[in-house]
Amino acid sequence: MLVNAYGAHAGDQPLEPLQITRRAPGAHDVQIDIAFCGICHSDLHQVRAEWYGTQFPCVPGHEIVGRVAAVGAHVDGFRPGDLVGIGCIVDSCKHCADCEDGLENYCDGMIGTYNFPTPDAPGWTLGGYSQQIVVHERYVLRIRHPEEQLAAVAPLLCAGITTYSPLRHWNVGPGKKVGVVGIGGLGHMGIKLAHALGAHVVAFTTSDSKREAALQLGADEVVVSRNAEEMAAHAKSFDLILNTVAAPHDLDAFLVLLKRDGNMTLVGAPATPHASPNVFNLIMKRRTLAGSMIGGIAETQEMLDFCAEHGIVSDIELVRADQINESYERMLKGDVKYRFVIDNATLAG
Amino acid sequence: MLVNAYGAHAGDQPLEPLQITRRAPGAHDVQIDIAFCGICHSDLHQVRAEWYGTQFPCVPGHEIVGRVAAVGAHVDGFRPGDLVGIGCIVDSCKHCADCEDGLENYCDGMIGTYNFPTPDAPGWTLGGYSQQIVVHERYVLRIRHPEEQLAAVAPLLCAGITTYSPLRHWNVGPGKKVGVVGIGGLGHMGIKLAHALGAHVVAFTTSDSKREAALQLGADEVVVSRNAEEMAAHAKSFDLILNTVAAPHDLDAFLVLLKRDGNMTLVGAPATPHASPNVFNLIMKRRTLAGSMIGGIAETQEMLDFCAEHGIVSDIELVRADQINESYERMLKGDVKYRFVIDNATLAG
Ligand SMILES: [Zn+2]
Ligand SMILES: [Zn+2]
Ligand SMILES: [Zn+2]
Ligand SMILES: [Zn+2]
Repeated sequence: MLVNAYGAHAGDQPLEPLQITRRAPGAHDVQIDIAFCGICHSDLHQVRAEWYGTQFPCVPGHEIVGRVAAVGAHVDGFRPGDLVGIGCIVDSCKHCADCEDGLENYCDGMIGTYNFPTPDAPGWTLGGYSQQIVVHERYVLRIRHPEEQLAAVAPLLCAGITTYSPLRHWNVGPGKKVGVVGIGGLGHMGIKLAHALGAHVVAFTTSDSKREAALQLGADEVVVSRNAEEMAAHAKSFDLILNTVAAPHDLDAFLVLLKRDGNMTLVGAPATPHASPNVFNLIMKRRTLAGSMIGGIAETQEMLDFCAEHGIVSDIELVRADQINESYERMLKGDVKYRFVIDNATLAG
Repeated sequence: MLVNAYGAHAGDQPLEPLQITRRAPGAHDVQIDIAFCGICHSDLHQVRAEWYGTQFPCVPGHEIVGRVAAVGAHVDGFRPGDLVGIGCIVDSCKHCADCEDGLENYCDGMIGTYNFPTPDAPGWTLGGYSQQIVVHERYVLRIRHPEEQLAAVAPLLCAGITTYSPLRHWNVGPGKKVGVVGIGGLGHMGIKLAHALGAHVVAFTTSDSKREAALQLGADEVVVSRNAEEMAAHAKSFDLILNTVAAPHDLDAFLVLLKRDGNMTLVGAPATPHASPNVFNLIMKRRTLAGSMIGGIAETQEMLDFCAEHGIVSDIELVRADQINESYERMLKGDVKYRFVIDNATLAG
């Protein structure tokens, strides 16, 4: 089955229209007409071959929402017409401890939505900058938001779950004080979600200009991280700091804000290392520094349901497929509030 | 009350005999005749002014065991003649969340056994290289080991609790795989305690020559950390790695050995930073890097009781007070199995 897509033939070339094949749905497969696809920073890094091992042609996109077009013979959970989503995972080994615990994101055999090996042509997975996708039912999420919110739901599939998973894992809720470092695609979701979970939310930004925006997203307080006095006022007070900033920065400035047994979770990996964190800052209050990578399928469904219930979506700017390259440039400049989403109808061409 | 002690008058001078005063016991105080005191690496760093703010004269020592000589009017828990210990903590604020949770070691007002401010003369605390010490009953530990083991119990008060606390905090027990990095004063206790707690224990050493010794301490396996093949065989398999090595080293080599949600706890802080750990190694399996500092009073008592029940003591070499300087030199060369303990009777002079 041939479908229209948008992708690149080399790391130094812009994305352009191309055609790709999708497999005929197998017994456990769900075939999805993609309505919208969010643009994630990972898309840009992979398609520009800034990360190791990009296969070309490369079609990015792992914040996918749309409607079920057809289902395989053994699929019970979904019917044609259902609103569904696909995130960063389209397959995994299905039998390891991680898969059994519903944390397919940590499975050694996890197959990402693009640039991972697959028996399908051309030999690696192709993502959501395309008209359709075919995915095993296990990795298909149900969307319970009203249809008019569908485009703004797309970023929940990566930015949403990437921030929701550590918030839940570290038991964020009423009575907890949570910091969110960085107010971008990930950070703006982190603020919304931590707020909806009932925590006291402090947004950290390097720019005073983002203060108002952060408050409107749900932050209870905003701290300009370059202001030493503002920072010192929060010393030893956080249960969790969710750090969404991938650029190398001073982790110690935030570690010292954690209370005893507090945790800072990093969800972005820098291209060059952060300065080495001071071990004393970990020892002194038994603090932990952790990482977290997207989330499992069950918790992604939980996150989507939580967001539907609380009316949470991403703040987005809808773009046509032929605006993807321009959107990448704007994203690099931080010129987006807070996520670009492709209207996949513009792929019909 | 004047007592004999051993200490230094400056960071570049050897320790020598001196006399110090101890306060008369207050209503809640316990006066202790010190029988033995372990020699900890911290003693050396502090007395040589390698750490910030050493006050002179400096009398180190925070692995103290002995007998109660007298008690204040309001002391119920101890009587003259009781076998007791004093560890790294002789006071704290007694009302913060940390103190209320029995984690006085994390109290901002924690008063260490030496070199911390006190109203007593000379204005800072003086440690266990002395004939007597007077401490508030809250910080006095009961020793239930047979008296003939008393010298070997001393190192439990710092090396023991420093390793026991993270083992317990991270739920080490049967079915858990635990690594211990470094086989010295701390590491040899970590191996003994993790083994007694029922874990599968893997000792990491840079030297093949320590293999037999580690097995005898209770390790189920020994890995020479310079051997890449041996290391790779343990990839993604550890629940906890207790890292006792303070010298700067490659943390990533151990982080990749942790399974999903695995933790590496550092109990030693390097004088110069470790190379910055790779954030991907934290993100990929939701691993955590933590620190831990000694332990609270309640868990120190729990550790002592656990050790008494399981017949656990430190491996020690008993020295006279006039051998302290020489012991420091040997400790720096790693020439001790595994802890020097001072026979405080040799202070009688
Ligand atoms: Zn993404
Ligand atoms: Zn799996
Ligand atoms: Zn010590
Ligand atoms: Zn306190």
